[in-house]
Amino acid sequence: MESDLIAYLRRRLPRDSRLELGIGDDAAVFGLAAAGRCVVTVDMLMDGVDFRLEEVDPRRIGRKALAINLSDLAAMAAEPLAVVVALALPRQGGLELAKSLYEGMIPLAEEFGVAIAGGDTNSWDAPLAISVTAMGLAGPRGVLRRDGARPGDRILVTGALGGSILGHHFDFTPRVREALQLQQDYELHAGMDISDGLLLDLSRLVAESGCAAELNLQSVPVAGDAEVLSRQPGDGRTPLDHALADGEDFELLLAVPAEEAARLLAMQPLPVALCDIGAIVAGDGLWAAEADGSRRRLEPRGYQHHLG
Amino acid sequence: MESDLIAYLRRRLPRDSRLELGIGDDAAVFGLAAAGRCVVTVDMLMDGVDFRLEEVDPRRIGRKALAINLSDLAAMAAEPLAVVVALALPRQGGLELAKSLYEGMIPLAEEFGVAIAGGDTNSWDAPLAISVTAMGLAGPRGVLRRDGARPGDRILVTGALGGSILGHHFDFTPRVREALQLQQDYELHAGMDISDGLLLDLSRLVAESGCAAELNLQSVPVAGDAEVLSRQPGDGRTPLDHALADGEDFELLLAVPAEEAARLLAMQPLPVALCDIGAIVAGDGLWAAEADGSRRRLEPRGYQHHLG
Repeated sequence: MESDLIAYLRRRLPRDSRLELGIGDDAAVFGLAAAGRCVVTVDMLMDGVDFRLEEVDPRRIGRKALAINLSDLAAMAAEPLAVVVALALPRQGGLELAKSLYEGMIPLAEEFGVAIAGGDTNSWDAPLAISVTAMGLAGPRGVLRRDGARPGDRILVTGALGGSILGHHFDFTPRVREALQLQQDYELHAGMDISDGLLLDLSRLVAESGCAAELNLQSVPVAGDAEVLSRQPGDGRTPLDHALADGEDFELLLAVPAEEAARLLAMQPLPVALCDIGAIVAGDGLWAAEADGSRRRLEPRGYQHHLG
Repeated sequence: MESDLIAYLRRRLPRDSRLELGIGDDAAVFGLAAAGRCVVTVDMLMDGVDFRLEEVDPRRIGRKALAINLSDLAAMAAEPLAVVVALALPRQGGLELAKSLYEGMIPLAEEFGVAIAGGDTNSWDAPLAISVTAMGLAGPRGVLRRDGARPGDRILVTGALGGSILGHHFDFTPRVREALQLQQDYELHAGMDISDGLLLDLSRLVAESGCAAELNLQSVPVAGDAEVLSRQPGDGRTPLDHALADGEDFELLLAVPAEEAARLLAMQPLPVALCDIGAIVAGDGLWAAEADGSRRRLEPRGYQHHLG
């Protein structure tokens, strides 16, 4: 890493007792007190794809790059431990940009007790790319996987969905505390975070679990920003459309045994609302339950990553 | 990650008993059998900076992206455990490129027993960037740091230096086994890998350790490729110049107590030669020992990462 940035980060980053060796050596070292399960995830954001650098405060980009990785740890019900950061910076103004990105990360890292342990910083004649790798530890009840849903489970989501492009995709709070609390105190069968859209992500969860989902569309919690977006001229989509397929909600999507789901919905133990949006059923794919008791197949719409 | 690539990797990647959950969930999960020290490092390679995609087989790029991270684990004397990979791919031909990059990584990952545990794959209207994060475990004698060198230590290097641009920077074997063996069986005070050039990296080691280095320049092992390079028309540098400052040698640079160094040099326990190139002394910076017993200061030349 570049020496001015190392000096800056060594001054700026808070001390973390688990971190034996931070920024400046060939690698970071942290101590693990006991045997356990280590959870690791990586996500990269790129100028022109995930944001437009000319239109947004780079601190928000840095914050989001960390937040999406914390959301992936939340999706596994893992406690955040440490992150490392790789930057490809445009040549002009790279050092200031790097500092701003880190300034966006640091408050969120402190809020979630995660150490910024190291990084690699480079510049090139191309746009900004920022890649964050996050490590966490599973609690005593293990990780929350995608493949454990079973017919009869209820499908729950936290918060409200849709319209995140209006700002929520930068400013969301990853559901780390909520996921840890639920995994600790309740029996969950499967879970993930909603990053590419409710329908697409749910289709992945049921595919991994070898079953299907039947949604009550009128129960899907629609965010205020989904309403705002649908009223914009030329939008041509309903608020529910946005809630089903926009993505970047970074809410939790859970499959929970029916009795446990009833208990959760009655207690509402989280600072954010839990909604029941349908059931896991036998079969495959996604279905909408109709008022007359029939059902129709739903396409798994959302943000598809296509490679050429 | 993109679904075709996930399907390909799930078929292609070997099973790893430590990996409880690999490609396809929100994060990878691996089991740690006991308390210990976890070592983590990240390095990114970028088209136009570290390689030219149009001039090189992408499998060599993938291999290098993994190898430089394994070299960083070697620099810490950590045993490789798992890696995750973030890709920013050009839109055209992205899937085939991604596969080729992974095909370059897989044999090296198998050779060093490291699991390719997960990744994030994206495409954009910009050049290729590949970021690998590697995790390892320290052995019972802990990690090898940069900051432990003391006056009186001998400075040892593995292999020969310089001219890596002719091919070694793609095809080198990271010194993982050598570092683990040395840390296990000998007393080492400090160490790192030579990535930015012997002089520049040694200047960092002595700066972290609060001391100076005095080199016997005639003892520096010069690679054959450094000789080849210096004979090229217009090169204008000696083979020794190349050995001192080219970088990307990915050899080990060690500070070893004098008696232990003598034992190591006599035994030569590694499949690669160990050379004594000088001594750690009190003071700061780098010095060349002259034949008449005097010394002159050396500039820490090498590959400097500058941010604009």
